[in-house]
This record gives sequence, structure tokens and C-alpha cells, in this order.
Amino acid sequence: MNQKILAALLVLMSAHAFGQDSSNQVSVDPSIIPADIAEKAIALRKRTLKDNLSVDIVESVTTEVGPRRIGTAGDERVIAWSQAKFKELGFDRVWTEEVTLDRGWTRGEAKAEILEPYPHNIVMTALGYSVGTDGDLVAEVVEFPTYDDLLAVPEGDSLKGKIAFISYSMADYVPPENGSGWGSYGEGTRARGKGRVEAAKRGAEAIVIRSVGIDNNRNGHTGSGYNYEDGVRMIPTAAVSAPDAVLIQNMLRRGKPVVLKMNLTSEITGPAKSANIIGEITGREDPDRFVFLGAHVDSWDEGTGALDDGAGIGSMMAAAAFIGQMEQRPRRSIRVIMFSGEEVGFYGVYAYMEKNQGNIDAHLLGAEVDTGGGRAHTLTSGVGPNSLAVVREMHKLVAPLGIEFNDANDAQAQSDMSEVSKAGMPALHLRQNLNGYFKYHHTPNDTFDKIIPEDMRYLTAAYATLFYVAAEMDIDFRK
Amino acid sequence: MNQKILAALLVLMSAHAFGQDSSNQVSVDPSIIPADIAEKAIALRKRTLKDNLSVDIVESVTTEVGPRRIGTAGDERVIAWSQAKFKELGFDRVWTEEVTLDRGWTRGEAKAEILEPYPHNIVMTALGYSVGTDGDLVAEVVEFPTYDDLLAVPEGDSLKGKIAFISYSMADYVPPENGSGWGSYGEGTRARGKGRVEAAKRGAEAIVIRSVGIDNNRNGHTGSGYNYEDGVRMIPTAAVSAPDAVLIQNMLRRGKPVVLKMNLTSEITGPAKSANIIGEITGREDPDRFVFLGAHVDSWDEGTGALDDGAGIGSMMAAAAFIGQMEQRPRRSIRVIMFSGEEVGFYGVYAYMEKNQGNIDAHLLGAEVDTGGGRAHTLTSGVGPNSLAVVREMHKLVAPLGIEFNDANDAQAQSDMSEVSKAGMPALHLRQNLNGYFKYHHTPNDTFDKIIPEDMRYLTAAYATLFYVAAEMDIDFRK
Repeated sequence: MNQKILAALLVLMSAHAFGQDSSNQVSVDPSIIPADIAEKAIALRKRTLKDNLSVDIVESVTTEVGPRRIGTAGDERVIAWSQAKFKELGFDRVWTEEVTLDRGWTRGEAKAEILEPYPHNIVMTALGYSVGTDGDLVAEVVEFPTYDDLLAVPEGDSLKGKIAFISYSMADYVPPENGSGWGSYGEGTRARGKGRVEAAKRGAEAIVIRSVGIDNNRNGHTGSGYNYEDGVRMIPTAAVSAPDAVLIQNMLRRGKPVVLKMNLTSEITGPAKSANIIGEITGREDPDRFVFLGAHVDSWDEGTGALDDGAGIGSMMAAAAFIGQMEQRPRRSIRVIMFSGEEVGFYGVYAYMEKNQGNIDAHLLGAEVDTGGGRAHTLTSGVGPNSLAVVREMHKLVAPLGIEFNDANDAQAQSDMSEVSKAGMPALHLRQNLNGYFKYHHTPNDTFDKIIPEDMRYLTAAYATLFYVAAEMDIDFRK
Repeated sequence: MNQKILAALLVLMSAHAFGQDSSNQVSVDPSIIPADIAEKAIALRKRTLKDNLSVDIVESVTTEVGPRRIGTAGDERVIAWSQAKFKELGFDRVWTEEVTLDRGWTRGEAKAEILEPYPHNIVMTALGYSVGTDGDLVAEVVEFPTYDDLLAVPEGDSLKGKIAFISYSMADYVPPENGSGWGSYGEGTRARGKGRVEAAKRGAEAIVIRSVGIDNNRNGHTGSGYNYEDGVRMIPTAAVSAPDAVLIQNMLRRGKPVVLKMNLTSEITGPAKSANIIGEITGREDPDRFVFLGAHVDSWDEGTGALDDGAGIGSMMAAAAFIGQMEQRPRRSIRVIMFSGEEVGFYGVYAYMEKNQGNIDAHLLGAEVDTGGGRAHTLTSGVGPNSLAVVREMHKLVAPLGIEFNDANDAQAQSDMSEVSKAGMPALHLRQNLNGYFKYHHTPNDTFDKIIPEDMRYLTAAYATLFYVAAEMDIDFRK
């Protein structure tokens, strides 16, 4: 028997046992967090851990709205849904702030087949803002194992008449530890964004990439905003499913030309209006200053955006709603923002920053969830040096949820909210298990059934507990 | 700590360790299996366990042929491929036997959307031999949790103007033990086959079922041959993906009518010709009698048929080829048959039985693989009472591959080959781990990347070892 495996299993099993919220002790230093606040926080944590509200919210948005890319009918529906949901959940104030999308996009249909050396229909999905193919595009495939390999061939006409194919597999490189690394997602997304420009500069007719994900499903992974550059020919760009990428590679290994036929009917369209939606639990003593919880309201358009970012919508709306259900409002306000247009270029947060730049000081402490509904395993912070001791005590309140503390104190709020962080807002961030996320997000498979209710409850309980304390205490997290 | 979990883990771990083929001992009774045969069998087992040939064959058929439903262009390609592959692998004789398909089928396209209460595009796949919808079919959905619930409503017009929806989930019922149960596949396939007739008898416009599988992917699971009945209206029949079934159910739970629009362009077509393909390693002493290894050469048409039944093709072709690579031919012949048209109704084996009914006695011992490439865990047999002792000794030769023996001696050969069993051919059968199979087979996801090479090698080594001994010994397995 392998003792290492056994030891690892025992660690896993005790970690699981640790996940039970059985702690009744308040070990928090009362000179840092007053005992009554700590007690209420613990009661809140225990109560919310049993409440499925965050999951129900994800079910609601994925079922009643579904796909909701900015500028589409789903976007209009989710703006209405968000306002109604905030009101239903008892938020005191609900409003929208306009967001302008400079150009829209229609996905259309994507069909593709391999014509040579062996005929196969394959699964392809247009990447965001791809132009269409204007009928069938038929060309030989040239494989590049990585984006850098594409960059290494000369600009001009080295790929004239060809389809560039980047076969880079995120699945082969994702680090296994703790399921929490971003792995090679960043590397994969280089090709997803700027590949269209770099391939065009080399004369290619189109660029196709292996889907950026760690799954083995026959679905494409979409993504990217408008990434064309003035003066560079706009060529179609798409992703093939991981199994189809393997198929093409297996054909290429035989040394035979692989000829692909693709037909995308995507189209870039005109400007559109959208909105960020904000709900507030109004503070009882200092209502104009607020802790700030975020998620993005838009999603990609082939799934229903359950993990990306329904889980953020559900956890953040529910966390604030739970605080709103307490006997009295917290000292300062809690605002929950549903950012528009994250997926195609942070449109929502840019509009927010423009409108709210004079008021950043009122943003006391922020966080965003944009990495699915997985359980949190580590609390990180980005606060002033004097506040770190407070965060350390706050951590003790969520430690029974299986959350460790990383005291490097160099975190920003995530995703959209990182822009607010950069402008000076202190932040907390809970690192989550990401494995499910990189299997499903941006694909047709990002649907409600992928939500693990218990994990969502753990995540939501942690945010509710932390931000209740942050809103209730009279502390400046910038110091 | 839960002691039961620990105990279960320890069993799993030791089973894993047992999977290593480290045995050099010949513990086989030499009065039953001569020592030289046992030694050669062990050497064969050890050699083949390192040989990737079975996997390479699956790669070849999935890449060079791809989907190969009977009566399609892929069927023609795979008949040619099979003959060429048998020859390339050194089989002594290769031939085909004609199979007639009484009616063919064109899949066409399947599009579906929910119109009410919330608009969604959903993933639908036509079930085998479904008629088309003749344009858009728009109707309200009526849910039946099981096929029996459909049968329970009165015949006549109780479903007039409706689409029957059977939401039965195989995933919720599959037994976890050992990954080897057929679980609720049989229950799921009742609706897949005869649902179209029973729904039509009740006046329904169409019948839609939840995909029969244990996966959570946004792909449809197809299946079924021609199942219409004379005198009953032919209505369209299709499967929705598991996540879309959940979506429809979540809408129905709200008490609102769910209106579905579906458009299938499937068509039933005329008769076609196909063929079984047979390769023989000719025996050195008794060439007209043979052990008989089978798989089916056809596949469903949305994936490339890697697990169903590329794995059978690869393991059986390779097992016999490995025996053909030995110093001398075995005493009796080995025939490998690639049956045509299994998926839509056992066309290949029925044609085979008609042609070969006078020669069943020459079939010494048979087996078929039609449950994917998972590792075998249990050997079963269906042989004469005197032969059971031989099979027990044969088992010792494969036990180091982690294979147990179930001596109930009531097994038949599997799938197509069960028909030959019924006619009197003795059989061996290796029960395999099936979990991957029920996630992927019959779906677009049944592709080469789902093959686990090590598991395929274990499976193939077991069949090579067992059938080398069966072909080499002078024994009548009927006795």
C-alpha cells in the first residue's frame, strides 16, 4: 500500500469533516471586534449556511433569463430581473446606471467540417466579435502548438490561403494543487483575443483555436470582446471543441494536409444601451458610506451563465439580503452591484468608474465573485496596514467554514471590481475551488445543474459573515 | 472519521495495487492446462499489456472513418477500413458477408427552443428513425416522470395537441457499486424505443425524453432503430440534453405552461446494403473450428463511436492479432467478426445467423465487447459443466490483471454475439467498468479522447490470454 496516497486521503477526509460548521466558540479578540458583533456574525454564519437562497437566485436567473450577453434581448431581461429580485429580497434602494456599448455582435451560426484527409463534421463556436466567413471558407490548416509559435512566423504572407490553428491545451497544463490555480487560462486567452490580429498580419484566412478549458466535451468555449485592430484585415476567429482539436492533430500527425470548411454567420452590429444594477441595504448610522459586493450580470450566450457569473449574482445578492434580514440594519450601507458587459470588455465597471470617480472614498471595502460557485478555501485581503489585524479577527469568524487566511495583504477585489480596487478601495477576496469553472464556463455546458448547492451556501455564508462585520464596525479599511 | 469510508478506500487502493501485473508464477493446474500453454499465455499477457495496438486501432477507426451508422457513407468506409486493417494486422483470411438493411434513415437537423414561459434555445437530438416535424412543431409540454406514467394515461386523445416529455433521469438511479451495473439504462431505453408509439396512441404531437445517460453535458443521447407500428400515427421523437431537461422541469415546477418549438428534418429512407467483416487467424491443426471474437462496426452518428464500439473493435482485433504474432498459429482458428447494424437492430448478427446456422457447432467459444474500453473486473462464463474447471484455470492466467472469477456459469456472449450464444455457442464474458460508457456513448462526446489507454491494454491482454488458451487447447467447451 502506498502510504503517501493514504496520508493524502486522510487529509482530504479530515478537511471534509472540518467543513462541518460545529464551532460555537467565539475566540475573536473583543478589543478588535466587539463581542456582540462577533456573536451576531457567528449566528449569521450558522443561519445562512442552511439557507439555499444563493442557489435559488442562480436558478432564477438561469431559468427566467438565461443567456444575457450585453446588447441582446437577454441583457434587457436581466436588467429588469435584477431590479425585481433586489426588491423582492428586501433591499432598501434599487437603481440602475446607464452603460453604453460601442458596438454589438450577433453570434449567428457556426458550422464546420473537415474535408480532407477524412471527412468529419466538427463542433466550432465563434469567438466574441468574430466577423462571419461570407459563405463557406475552405482552406488548409496550419498548426501552431502555442500562440508564441504563431508569432514566430514572419508577418506578410507566410499564412496566405491558410487557416491558423492553435492547438494549445489548457487541460495539459492546469496545475492540480487545490483546484485553485488559474493554470494556463491566461496563456489560452492570448490566442482567443489577439490571435485574430496576429494571424491576419501573417496573411491567414481565419484563425481557429482549441477551446480554452480543461474539459473533454464536444462543446466550444467562446470568449473575447472586439479585438480587431485598425488597418489589419478582419478575419474570422473561432474555437473547436477539445475532442475535435485532438482529431485534427491526429490527422496532422499522419503528415497529410487537413482541409477545413467553416461557415460563420456572425456579424458586428451597432451601439447599444445597457445598465449596471445596484441594490442597497441602507446603513442605520452612516448610510452614504458602504461596503461593496459585485458580480457581473452579463454572460456568454451558449450556456445560461450559471457559474459565470450566476454564482456571483446568487452569492452576492444573497449575502447582502441575509444581512438585511437581521434585526437592525448595519451601521454603514451594503451595496450590491451587478456589472454589465464584463465578458466583452468591462463596459459596466468603466461606466461605473466614470460616474462615481468623485465618490471612491465612500467605498469602504469591496469584493467580487466571478469564479463560479466553488467552496472558498482561502481569505486574502488588500487593506491598510492597521486594518490587517481586524481582517485577521474577521477570518476567525469564517475559519469554521474551512477557510484559511493568507496574510500577504496584497489582494485586489476580483474581475470588474479590480478597477475600483485600483482607484483605492480596500478589498477582501476569497479564493475558491475552480475546477468546475474551467470545465464549463463560456461553453453551452454552463448551466444550473453545475451548481453544487452546499458549496454555494458555504461561499455565501462566508461573504455574509465578513461583510456584516465590515459594515457594522466603525473602521477605515484604508488605514 | 468515518471508518466505513476508510475501509472502502483501502479496498479500492489494494484493488489498484493488484492491477499491477507483477506475477511470474504459474499456479495453473498442469493436468488441466498444460504447462507450456500456460507459460505461453502468461508471456502473451505480459507482452500485450505493454502494447498499445488496441488503442491505435480505435484511433484509426475514429479518425479515418468517424461516424458509421449502417446505410451511410461512413458504413461504406468502415467496411473497406475493416478489411484493410485485418490484412495489415496479419490475419490469414479476410472476407465480408452481406447484410441487408430494410430501411435507412437520414438524421437531418434538430433545432428546438422553449417559447414560453421563458425563451431558451435548447439542445435536442432526433432519436433513431424519427420522422421529421414537417416545419416547426409548436406545442405545450406534458411531463411524465417515467415511461409507466405515460402508459397510465388513457389512449385516445388525452395528449392531443401536446408534446409528451419523459423526464426520467438515469443519472439519479445508476447504482454506484463497482461502476458495473447497467443501472437504469434499460428503463431509460423503454421510452427511447416504444415511446413514439405509446405517445401517438394517446394523441401526442411528438415525444421528447431526457437523454438516457449519467452525464450532465449539453449534448443529446440518441438511439433506437425503427420502432413505429403499423396503424399508429408516426410522430417525431427526440431527446433533450440532461441540463435542458432540468431547465424544462424547473419551468414546469413554477406551474406555468411550457411551450416548445421543435424542428426535425429527419427522414426515413429506402433499403441499403451493408456487410459483416470477418478476419481469421487460421488454426494449424483444426482450422475449420474457431473461437469467435466480436464487436460491432457501426456507430451512432454524432460522435465517432470510440467507446461504442470502437473499443470493441480495437480490443478484439488486437487480441487476435497478438495471438497471430506468436511463433506458431494456435491449434484451432480465431475469427474476429465486425457486426454491421447493431445499433439500429442487430442487422449484422441476424444476417450472420441466417447464413451460418448450419455451422454453429464450429463456433467453439465466443465473446463480444460492446461496453467501452473500461478495465475488466470479473470473468464470467457460459460453458458446459465439465469445462468450468478449465475456465477456472484460465482465470488464474488473467487474475494478475485484477480480474475476479464469478463461477455462476450462466453468462452469454454480449450484444450481437448473444444471438450466437442462444444458438448454442459457449461463451466467456468480461464485465467491465462502465461509468465512462454511460457518460458518453450515443452522444457527440463519444470520441477518441475518452479512451483510457491503460484500461484498453488491460482489457485486450485479458481477451488475448483467454482466447489463446481456448484456441490452443483441444477441448469442447460445450461439454
